[in-house]
Amino acid sequence: MLAHLIANAAAVFDKLVVVIGPEMADVAELAAPHTVVVQHERLGTAHAALQAEAYFGEGDVAVLYADNPLISEQTLSRLLAERRSPGVGLALLAMRPQDPGRYGRVLTEGSNVTRIVEWADATPAERAIDLCNAGVLCADAPTFRHWLHNVKNDNTKGEYYLTDVVDLAVADGVNVRAVEAAEDELRGINSRAELAQAEAALQQHLRAQAMANGVTLVAPETVFFCADTVLEADVLVEPHVVFGPSVTVRSGAEIKAFSHLEGCTVQTDAIIGPYARLRPGTQVGAKARIGNFVEVKNTTLGDGAKANHLTYLGDATVGAGTNVGAGSITCNYDGVFKHRTTIGEHVFVGSNTIMVAPVNIGGNALVAAGSVITKDVPAEALAFGRPRQTNMPERGKLLKESLKARKDNG
Amino acid sequence: MLAHLIANAAAVFDKLVVVIGPEMADVAELAAPHTVVVQHERLGTAHAALQAEAYFGEGDVAVLYADNPLISEQTLSRLLAERRSPGVGLALLAMRPQDPGRYGRVLTEGSNVTRIVEWADATPAERAIDLCNAGVLCADAPTFRHWLHNVKNDNTKGEYYLTDVVDLAVADGVNVRAVEAAEDELRGINSRAELAQAEAALQQHLRAQAMANGVTLVAPETVFFCADTVLEADVLVEPHVVFGPSVTVRSGAEIKAFSHLEGCTVQTDAIIGPYARLRPGTQVGAKARIGNFVEVKNTTLGDGAKANHLTYLGDATVGAGTNVGAGSITCNYDGVFKHRTTIGEHVFVGSNTIMVAPVNIGGNALVAAGSVITKDVPAEALAFGRPRQTNMPERGKLLKESLKARKDNG
Amino acid sequence: MLAHLIANAAAVFDKLVVVIGPEMADVAELAAPHTVVVQHERLGTAHAALQAEAYFGEGDVAVLYADNPLISEQTLSRLLAERRSPGVGLALLAMRPQDPGRYGRVLTEGSNVTRIVEWADATPAERAIDLCNAGVLCADAPTFRHWLHNVKNDNTKGEYYLTDVVDLAVADGVNVRAVEAAEDELRGINSRAELAQAEAALQQHLRAQAMANGVTLVAPETVFFCADTVLEADVLVEPHVVFGPSVTVRSGAEIKAFSHLEGCTVQTDAIIGPYARLRPGTQVGAKARIGNFVEVKNTTLGDGAKANHLTYLGDATVGAGTNVGAGSITCNYDGVFKHRTTIGEHVFVGSNTIMVAPVNIGGNALVAAGSVITKDVPAEALAFGRPRQTNMPERGKLLKESLKARKDNG
Repeated sequence: MLAHLIANAAAVFDKLVVVIGPEMADVAELAAPHTVVVQHERLGTAHAALQAEAYFGEGDVAVLYADNPLISEQTLSRLLAERRSPGVGLALLAMRPQDPGRYGRVLTEGSNVTRIVEWADATPAERAIDLCNAGVLCADAPTFRHWLHNVKNDNTKGEYYLTDVVDLAVADGVNVRAVEAAEDELRGINSRAELAQAEAALQQHLRAQAMANGVTLVAPETVFFCADTVLEADVLVEPHVVFGPSVTVRSGAEIKAFSHLEGCTVQTDAIIGPYARLRPGTQVGAKARIGNFVEVKNTTLGDGAKANHLTYLGDATVGAGTNVGAGSITCNYDGVFKHRTTIGEHVFVGSNTIMVAPVNIGGNALVAAGSVITKDVPAEALAFGRPRQTNMPERGKLLKESLKARKDNG
Repeated sequence: MLAHLIANAAAVFDKLVVVIGPEMADVAELAAPHTVVVQHERLGTAHAALQAEAYFGEGDVAVLYADNPLISEQTLSRLLAERRSPGVGLALLAMRPQDPGRYGRVLTEGSNVTRIVEWADATPAERAIDLCNAGVLCADAPTFRHWLHNVKNDNTKGEYYLTDVVDLAVADGVNVRAVEAAEDELRGINSRAELAQAEAALQQHLRAQAMANGVTLVAPETVFFCADTVLEADVLVEPHVVFGPSVTVRSGAEIKAFSHLEGCTVQTDAIIGPYARLRPGTQVGAKARIGNFVEVKNTTLGDGAKANHLTYLGDATVGAGTNVGAGSITCNYDGVFKHRTTIGEHVFVGSNTIMVAPVNIGGNALVAAGSVITKDVPAEALAFGRPRQTNMPERGKLLKESLKARKDNG
Repeated sequence: MLAHLIANAAAVFDKLVVVIGPEMADVAELAAPHTVVVQHERLGTAHAALQAEAYFGEGDVAVLYADNPLISEQTLSRLLAERRSPGVGLALLAMRPQDPGRYGRVLTEGSNVTRIVEWADATPAERAIDLCNAGVLCADAPTFRHWLHNVKNDNTKGEYYLTDVVDLAVADGVNVRAVEAAEDELRGINSRAELAQAEAALQQHLRAQAMANGVTLVAPETVFFCADTVLEADVLVEPHVVFGPSVTVRSGAEIKAFSHLEGCTVQTDAIIGPYARLRPGTQVGAKARIGNFVEVKNTTLGDGAKANHLTYLGDATVGAGTNVGAGSITCNYDGVFKHRTTIGEHVFVGSNTIMVAPVNIGGNALVAAGSVITKDVPAEALAFGRPRQTNMPERGKLLKESLKARKDNG
């Protein structure tokens, strides 16, 4: 969901700086290519904001929180526009929740905010106010920097609170304005149930967006997207599909039921699934076909290539028009190193072929079903590596009878 | 969803004629065995209705639209009954949508419809009327034919509109009556989101119907049906199951989670899944068992036959009581032709057996695990085609050490 | 769902006795280790309760029904507390359903219940009462036993009805009190649709409970639990997961999308799925990894062991740090007997290895990809059993051409 917030913020602001804790390398990775700054001591929200001071520049600066991940692009645009209205020095986001509970209250006089009062410090009359602070602020960089440096930590926790900036602004005679947005966008996440609700709201948004873009979702409520999922118009998605990060699917492709995609690109008119798993580094060519119980990782499949059944393709290149038979497996891992398998164009790989990488199979070659391929196959060659079949008359029947006799004897 | 509309209409009307555009062969296929007529020029809805004129006969005729696919059998029965009420010459479907928006309004006097006014032509007073036209008409054949031939195309688009029939009927002094139905049934589909909503409404209907018929759905909201899915009483369906077209499941069978069925028949007390995929042309016998990660296509399995794990059976016949071991594969495709595999009754096919079709395995035969079967196996024989195992002492350890050494050296 | 009722009742009452019909062995199994009593003749609810008489003891006794499976622990506690209030001799559960329909009505005077009147016998004024009987009673053992023995069967069906106990209690001058609970908890299940609704309510409860316990559910509405599922805090469950009976997952483990678990324990930081199926008797060690299209049954995997792709492990022991390659299969079944496969620690099992049980592979051994292992492999040895590969130049091309020629010739 952080990715969603970053995407929305990046659509409104020129530059993003993500402030993280010292042991949040996974967040840093997610934030890339945006600037990441580490807050080594947890001294409060104003202190966190100051870690990014060097990147403030000359324009307007807004401070957002990772636990308000659902703020929309539209709301951020309205916040920035309000800040830039004539005479406004500081803009903040506020909401009127159904249950205002213990949120800080926003006190106003006319259109100006006069104070944020924490619930613990509020009088009964102030607690009756239903406009609540969402914590997000926006001001021009030099003034914001000045206020941040003047926030004090003379409170019980000894922390520097961003909210104090509002008091400093009012004290400086600056007009402070509240921009209202829906509770659904602004509420913080304080439990796993709220996290699930927020995720559900995000998924609903992403599904609606996909359909508005011309994607057919047969059963939207069973399809899960990432914020960065790209599905072109006229993609068809069947029920029960999960998209992980970094997926692009081109127009006319079909993603059938029970498929799981991450880090991959699927070209036009390709058909994926049912029960296909595409893992990071997978490129599926136009009109190619990945069928059921097939796993593909770090592999490129050319146009019209097929791997229809019970197959694992890892660290491989599969040429255009090549057919990989059922039950085929690339042995890409020897316990220490990973190796590549290269298969040319228009190759016929028979069922249950084991390709022990590194290995190359030339174009138009044919590999007999059940072979273990340990050395390169030249183009146009026939390769086989399978044992000869022997039939022993009546031995099947005799074996069965002896097993049953053993069972009957206990 | 069109299949759903066709099924409902066929339950009320004796004969259906489906009018399609010139490039809608897939719809024609879906409409079979009903009559299909092609409208070669798109000259409006009245013109489309006239393409079916030759099939009008002598009884009553109704005109429905593919983009109102959710009309129920009950509503169609009410429409027809209203048309047949004494003194009624034309009956139409109408609704009172929550947001009447730009629908045409139905003007009435007493119980008679006097006019349909398009939104663009409506006065403010007329727009305030909340009874909206759903476009569906029903009249007796000779009169309907007469009206259709009298519809004019003197409008901006130069098209023949079916709605004009209402004016012609009123002008002829005929009593026109509106039959009201729920918005959910009648609203048209104008976006992918509306399509998904309509599909969801249809699925809800099909699930309720299945449960009313005595089918147990553990989690109905995760099960997807086709309009023609036939599940007998006392079938059990676990969560996350997808039914494609033409599936019949007999009483007592279980469809376990994550299964995907199309074009198949499952006999009584068979167990399918989890993670089983039955493709078109599959017949599963009584008490047979198709297990996880198993794909079956164009294959007949006898009573009590089993294929429990990681298997592909394509273009095969599997006899009663036969057990197909894990990882077994029929190689039915040589790159050009498809061939059949025939396995007799009470055969034991060892794990990871590759059957290169065309091939026959006789009854009571036994195939050793890991065999590649390229020639027929006589009944009661033992077949094996696998290599002899060699153990090389300490070589495992040495190989690992050398790989690690290579890694450590860069 | 019965398991859910049993769990809730066991949390409130010291002892449970489950009364079943003569052919309900599956329920008896589910009820274990609680006492099970068989009612051989179906002579009514009071008769059923009397079958458990020998276990009544001296304390309080409550009678519940299997078709009210959603009664919460809280409601049962309230029922028991009410029974134990000063002066109260009999407590019963009641509800005010949205549609009281044909439920029996609870007649009261002040806080006392005076009578339960069946709908068929009720006057219009009595039918207007909205307090309905849920059938659940609680009294002290000796008195309850006395009343049960005095229930008569002088009714049309000739059965002994538990409800008559209320009249007997009132006749004895005992104070009878109704404890109200929500309709959702108390309503009986009379159709497959109501069963699905009850199951949905139960699932919603189990999901909320899991999240309250610190489990992350990305898409709670797609995850299905059993009443006895144990997930520790900081377990992550992706969308589309099904938990069958008797599953325990330790903190830090991840259950990825499309997984299906039953009868298994997953230790801390293990990763399961996507598309993993763990069957009864499976133990997955800490940081172990079961990947896609992998089935595991009656198998123990040591810490850090891996089986990542397209594998079947049945009746096996896999040592810590061992890697089982893609497409590997334990042949545990010879058609009559099941045998075990034992794999030591830090073994590398190459892809598509067939292990014909009973067989042992020693620690640190290495099995070459594509081998059929039929005899034991000593520790540290290299085992292989696969055919030599042959390449036949140009034969691939020639074979293809001849197939195509045959096709072209019809």
